[in-house]
Amino acid sequence: MSKLWEKEYSFDQLIEEYTVGQDPVLDLRLVNGDCVASIAHAVMLERIGILKPGELAALRGELVEIIRRNQAGEFAIRVDEEDCHTAIENRLVDKLGEAGKKIHTGRSRNDQVIAALRLHVRSSLLTLQGACLDLVRTLLGFARTHAEVPMPGRTHMQIAMPSSVGLWAGAFAEELLDDLRLLDGAYELNDLCPLGSAASYGVPLPLDRELVSELLGFRALQNNVLYVNNSRGKFEAVILDAAEQVMLTLSKLAQDLILYSMPEFGYFTLPQELSAGSSIMPQKRNPCMLELMRAKAATVGACGTQVKSIIRSLPSGYNRDFQETKEPLLRGLGLTLSSLRVADRVMGSLGVDPQALLAGFTPEIYATDRALELVAAGVPFRDAYRRVAATLNEVQSMDPHEAIRRKTHAGTTGNLRLELAEEQLLQHEARHSERSGRVERCARELTGIAASL
Amino acid sequence: MSKLWEKEYSFDQLIEEYTVGQDPVLDLRLVNGDCVASIAHAVMLERIGILKPGELAALRGELVEIIRRNQAGEFAIRVDEEDCHTAIENRLVDKLGEAGKKIHTGRSRNDQVIAALRLHVRSSLLTLQGACLDLVRTLLGFARTHAEVPMPGRTHMQIAMPSSVGLWAGAFAEELLDDLRLLDGAYELNDLCPLGSAASYGVPLPLDRELVSELLGFRALQNNVLYVNNSRGKFEAVILDAAEQVMLTLSKLAQDLILYSMPEFGYFTLPQELSAGSSIMPQKRNPCMLELMRAKAATVGACGTQVKSIIRSLPSGYNRDFQETKEPLLRGLGLTLSSLRVADRVMGSLGVDPQALLAGFTPEIYATDRALELVAAGVPFRDAYRRVAATLNEVQSMDPHEAIRRKTHAGTTGNLRLELAEEQLLQHEARHSERSGRVERCARELTGIAASL
Amino acid sequence: MSKLWEKEYSFDQLIEEYTVGQDPVLDLRLVNGDCVASIAHAVMLERIGILKPGELAALRGELVEIIRRNQAGEFAIRVDEEDCHTAIENRLVDKLGEAGKKIHTGRSRNDQVIAALRLHVRSSLLTLQGACLDLVRTLLGFARTHAEVPMPGRTHMQIAMPSSVGLWAGAFAEELLDDLRLLDGAYELNDLCPLGSAASYGVPLPLDRELVSELLGFRALQNNVLYVNNSRGKFEAVILDAAEQVMLTLSKLAQDLILYSMPEFGYFTLPQELSAGSSIMPQKRNPCMLELMRAKAATVGACGTQVKSIIRSLPSGYNRDFQETKEPLLRGLGLTLSSLRVADRVMGSLGVDPQALLAGFTPEIYATDRALELVAAGVPFRDAYRRVAATLNEVQSMDPHEAIRRKTHAGTTGNLRLELAEEQLLQHEARHSERSGRVERCARELTGIAASL
Amino acid sequence: MSKLWEKEYSFDQLIEEYTVGQDPVLDLRLVNGDCVASIAHAVMLERIGILKPGELAALRGELVEIIRRNQAGEFAIRVDEEDCHTAIENRLVDKLGEAGKKIHTGRSRNDQVIAALRLHVRSSLLTLQGACLDLVRTLLGFARTHAEVPMPGRTHMQIAMPSSVGLWAGAFAEELLDDLRLLDGAYELNDLCPLGSAASYGVPLPLDRELVSELLGFRALQNNVLYVNNSRGKFEAVILDAAEQVMLTLSKLAQDLILYSMPEFGYFTLPQELSAGSSIMPQKRNPCMLELMRAKAATVGACGTQVKSIIRSLPSGYNRDFQETKEPLLRGLGLTLSSLRVADRVMGSLGVDPQALLAGFTPEIYATDRALELVAAGVPFRDAYRRVAATLNEVQSMDPHEAIRRKTHAGTTGNLRLELAEEQLLQHEARHSERSGRVERCARELTGIAASL
Repeated sequence: MSKLWEKEYSFDQLIEEYTVGQDPVLDLRLVNGDCVASIAHAVMLERIGILKPGELAALRGELVEIIRRNQAGEFAIRVDEEDCHTAIENRLVDKLGEAGKKIHTGRSRNDQVIAALRLHVRSSLLTLQGACLDLVRTLLGFARTHAEVPMPGRTHMQIAMPSSVGLWAGAFAEELLDDLRLLDGAYELNDLCPLGSAASYGVPLPLDRELVSELLGFRALQNNVLYVNNSRGKFEAVILDAAEQVMLTLSKLAQDLILYSMPEFGYFTLPQELSAGSSIMPQKRNPCMLELMRAKAATVGACGTQVKSIIRSLPSGYNRDFQETKEPLLRGLGLTLSSLRVADRVMGSLGVDPQALLAGFTPEIYATDRALELVAAGVPFRDAYRRVAATLNEVQSMDPHEAIRRKTHAGTTGNLRLELAEEQLLQHEARHSERSGRVERCARELTGIAASL
Repeated sequence: MSKLWEKEYSFDQLIEEYTVGQDPVLDLRLVNGDCVASIAHAVMLERIGILKPGELAALRGELVEIIRRNQAGEFAIRVDEEDCHTAIENRLVDKLGEAGKKIHTGRSRNDQVIAALRLHVRSSLLTLQGACLDLVRTLLGFARTHAEVPMPGRTHMQIAMPSSVGLWAGAFAEELLDDLRLLDGAYELNDLCPLGSAASYGVPLPLDRELVSELLGFRALQNNVLYVNNSRGKFEAVILDAAEQVMLTLSKLAQDLILYSMPEFGYFTLPQELSAGSSIMPQKRNPCMLELMRAKAATVGACGTQVKSIIRSLPSGYNRDFQETKEPLLRGLGLTLSSLRVADRVMGSLGVDPQALLAGFTPEIYATDRALELVAAGVPFRDAYRRVAATLNEVQSMDPHEAIRRKTHAGTTGNLRLELAEEQLLQHEARHSERSGRVERCARELTGIAASL
Repeated sequence: MSKLWEKEYSFDQLIEEYTVGQDPVLDLRLVNGDCVASIAHAVMLERIGILKPGELAALRGELVEIIRRNQAGEFAIRVDEEDCHTAIENRLVDKLGEAGKKIHTGRSRNDQVIAALRLHVRSSLLTLQGACLDLVRTLLGFARTHAEVPMPGRTHMQIAMPSSVGLWAGAFAEELLDDLRLLDGAYELNDLCPLGSAASYGVPLPLDRELVSELLGFRALQNNVLYVNNSRGKFEAVILDAAEQVMLTLSKLAQDLILYSMPEFGYFTLPQELSAGSSIMPQKRNPCMLELMRAKAATVGACGTQVKSIIRSLPSGYNRDFQETKEPLLRGLGLTLSSLRVADRVMGSLGVDPQALLAGFTPEIYATDRALELVAAGVPFRDAYRRVAATLNEVQSMDPHEAIRRKTHAGTTGNLRLELAEEQLLQHEARHSERSGRVERCARELTGIAASL
Repeated sequence: MSKLWEKEYSFDQLIEEYTVGQDPVLDLRLVNGDCVASIAHAVMLERIGILKPGELAALRGELVEIIRRNQAGEFAIRVDEEDCHTAIENRLVDKLGEAGKKIHTGRSRNDQVIAALRLHVRSSLLTLQGACLDLVRTLLGFARTHAEVPMPGRTHMQIAMPSSVGLWAGAFAEELLDDLRLLDGAYELNDLCPLGSAASYGVPLPLDRELVSELLGFRALQNNVLYVNNSRGKFEAVILDAAEQVMLTLSKLAQDLILYSMPEFGYFTLPQELSAGSSIMPQKRNPCMLELMRAKAATVGACGTQVKSIIRSLPSGYNRDFQETKEPLLRGLGLTLSSLRVADRVMGSLGVDPQALLAGFTPEIYATDRALELVAAGVPFRDAYRRVAATLNEVQSMDPHEAIRRKTHAGTTGNLRLELAEEQLLQHEARHSERSGRVERCARELTGIAASL
């Protein structure tokens, strides 16, 4: 009897395939999280007298064995088992009999799915934040290296005012640091223990929910048992919205790099081994990964839109619609992670051509500087502006290096203050390290092995 | 040498995985289409003297062999080959040498991908339209069977006026017939031959594009070679928008069925074998496939949004971003097809409880009828309305069957005119049959076998 | 008593403002349509004996007067009247007494709103299609004028192969002709008469729905009365999806123009009077309308997404949610119309700089042509490709004009076949003219004046 | 001369209307913010010697006068002035001559727009958070009042397990408290001073950016001047995503209320004065504001999607596309605020019918409780589950009050722990009050009056 709810009648196959969907594949990523959560649940059940100490030991042993097999790629979920939760309970019953039949006491698949997802997502977010920190570090290094390389500043994609490669790269570093704030907010929301909420209404058993939360290293217990289920999809959306912000940042970076590595600009050069060719044109070297980064920003955005659209106007309590939020969550996080890594690879090997950058310094790039010189000489700005506009072809060139050095107020080319971002980076790294340590410690204490969630 | 464009330097592995993405898996669905298109291309190349007759025969033989192996599940695409197009050309070169090296003459992967996609999508749309026609037929049968079963009509989800199960089901049939119009429009747009456009700019060879178009059974040739590439993503979006309309119809059907099969209504009953159970609550029988249908409507919507967001503001010509439109297209079409089939299964086995339906016929459902009786007696409508509103508790009940029979104008409960929809259904079925025949004939003539695209 | 449904209790003001929303402003655009539909409805009511001939004449007279006042900007809708339908009925009752109280016989605000919207949208779509045809004509003229001006063809935004300004502009013309097909499909769906469906369930009166449909010049009657309401939002979504396709085309055009008018390219020049300046930089001339066109493509897309998201998973019958679909529909159509007009203005005054275009013809643009010369000499394509790739720096330049002339197969630079698009344009113009004539004729026959819907 | 950048040629009218868009209307909301920011900027300009003390006094006087006139509804922006920034500078130049011409020294419209928007949004977010806190308070009061009223708990919209009105309402309170966390995150991101970034590249003047930031009460200075412009649209998206989360919560609340106030349930009753009627059906009382709340959740979602779609793949620096993000930001915030207020009104006057709620307590709602009684008696859960499932019709009823009281673990019906949420509410209220005080104080110190931003 393979499904947890299976009774005496058989289930239509077309319907089964439709409802099971991609779970047998997707859920392989949740197996470890589900086993770890089951161990914590079992510890608590033993503490309140539902399980005997021997049963707990047997369950823990078998759950650790499932983790091992899953890490070795040897655990499979059959379509007729629906998902990892059923597959795991089936294994426990097969191996352990009574003890296996007790593991589901005081929980429902509803809170069980949420728990496994949150544990997996917590680890994924830590990996993602790590990749984000790597890219910030690379960008800040790039900004320092090219801090004083003049670069035409643009507005409306037209040449505007003198700028620098340092300013350009520093802007992305600061943006990613703000993205990290958003990822942090999402992390904290996800880091709440759902277990004990069961099917949304709790159970008439003296569950010790706080204990389970602590064992699993959650920041806190999510209190209201109905809210636990009502937050399904919601937290996923918050996480995906934060991931999308990362992708929006990367899409801008990609667009800049595609544009400025066109032969007409030549500001930046991508190393040969990062470029792809054409099947018909022998000479082509295309920035494919940047174009795909631009496109994948739209994909991650669609993941968030999908989740929010699914949960909009659903009534309270568990609805099966939630299942459809799992795939976009995992997909969105995966794409964001690989995009960050590709961006880091690109920025780490990007060539800068100072000569090509100087070509954009035609005299009119200095028009505003000239107007402000008149201001310094006492002319009201609006008059200075009009005077320069009327005599544009008289605007004289200037030394580009001098032009970017003489802007000295906070945050501009002559005063980038990269140290502010570097300090924030250090703080993020410290928090990231502390969190990663806690998460690993909990998993190790429950399983006795290094279980990747 | 595995990539079509591979040269003397190696390609970064992280970048390779990122750019290749899911193509090695997704492209298995395009293998047959690509082979069939290649045969048509080869026939034309032979006609204009690029291939020798013997080379054409060899290429055709080997391409048919690839189709056979693919249909047997024995064709695989390696990640380092990127996609099916490369894998197929590699096989041809391995087996045939010179002839294989000539197959890519006068085409680019750009038009090759589009051709394979359009052939595959053409077949998918035919299957989808077939499933849609099945559901229309089932709905019209259901409407005929229960044509005179009274059902409370609702607005704002509140009880409004007498209605019937026939009117309810007939509304969905007519909506799906409009959806079929949209699918038809999408079909016609997709049914244009892209081959010969190469990388967007044609080639300096006397290609006979019209011949290739005819061999492949396309409605017409897509003329401007740049537009061929500019339409990538665009046609996909039109197709997905049409599919989404089907899903919107199904989401409404699902919502009605979920609602009206709640115990508080009990209008409809789902057979046991279509319902799923709960892991914790022994009594539950849940309409999971309907909840998922509701959710998958959001998913298909997200597929369309994703594609349009990817192509928005792209400049002219091929951009690698297009690759990212393939997955949502195939996913969206697949989900729409399975949803239609599930809806057909549900409607084909849905129970109707006339007694439960009558429970909604409280006296106030007749308030409007009563006001219109006053109108028939000469009272101006607005006065009649106010008079009934002021004396609502005096409104008397009526025979529900009589109430739905006495509405006799076009399209209402006493005059459903289901025959109009039945006639449209026949027309659609005839066109569908004609198209399917043509598509199969072309594939058979080119390959000599029954090649499913 | 200002609301149609107002009874003895007062309506909470906060709730009133929330539910009325923007209707008092938006509905001014629907006043004429509502009056025209009311006249047709009254004609039918007189025909079936509900109205006396004198009442019909009085109603018609007063409704025409309201149209006149609305066209003069003298008709206002008070917030406490909610919408134009109430405001108009109130005027009729005030002026005509009994006859006014009879006008709502056999209809509901539900079908009344839909009728007014469809009449207005029908006219808006005709205007939109007209603007679209204008732009196709301008683009084809532009393509003819610059048919043989060489332009670097790009893929991945990198220089790829020789192309021409004629090919570039012709691609947009063909794309817009496909957009016109989609607008046509939307037009036909919208061109169905909803009247007589009342609150979704018809009425027990012998309404002659076919007559009303004919009087209003609709293509056909929408049969099932429940489907009429179920199609609310759905048709709006189809219309907006078609409009979005136009905007996607324009966003690509805008992106090309922004890019190619950058000083680093200088292919195209925008006349001074279409460019805007900067508040701080005296020298700037920015392509603001093109940047906004790019952005407004996203806005129109959001309008369609909004509508589909609103109606997803709504149960059958009227739901007040539908009201929220009105604003995005009108906004989306308005933005698409103004964007088409701006694009036409831009294309009609765009300068082309042949010298700047030639600058992109570096030798490697001919690499593919050279490989295909080897093919013509008998070398298998893949060998030719590799041979050229290995000796890229030996590729010799060619006359750009010659390079685009020697590609002669269908749809490429030497054989644009603009006449195909010109022929389609003529067909569209003929259909457009026929439709516009019919719509105007119906309105004139019902009102005796030229009433713009 | 009306535009800041106007020169000797005239601007095409069609283009002007297209580019100006709705700014003359929308910008009325930004006038006060722009004036306050200008005063802070002027104070700084005087401090660094650009303005004379008398000029500062004159500017401050005139800017305060503009605020006064705007608050009295007497300030208008002409289309040919484009936006509030131009209109205000024009007034200053008209009135003050030289001093007016100096106000734009060291800034661009780019940073000026951002500053005015952030000041306005900061105030809007405070109002929104206030309305959110009101609703949390109302919900917690409602939960306390009906804490022990039994309510059928549902999953899949089917009857599942015993629950309570207290649990139901408490779930929404806790969800809104999480929404407040997200609004807080958005508030902090918005609370950064952009001034001094000018056109994205700073200026060669010794601006004291920190001083301006402090004067305006910002949390901190946004450092990198290019990032200031790169964050346009981004911060708007974060704000709208947070607002959408509020709307998703409200859409669930609305759906529950619509459903459970249907006559078939009757759990909740909406007071008459909050319900709207029908134009044709005399008996109807419709929950229109709840249906619109459901719909407006989709609208606010579309606002966020629109903004993110606009900025996706834009290159660095100011692009005019940003202008198109202003309207959805203001619209989305406005709709969220009014929805919160309506929800508060509804929850503050909602009737609860304990008898109707008890009707859902059919015996099978206790099936899980019964299974867990067997567990307490030593039966393994999975066996107990199957035993109850096999004898469902033997499950005996129970006292509903007893059933909800006996669930006593954290967060469930017998142990709601509402005090946790009440404590969080107090913390939020304290922070909200502190922030509001600071914002008002800064505006008052700069203007000398109570200027609402």
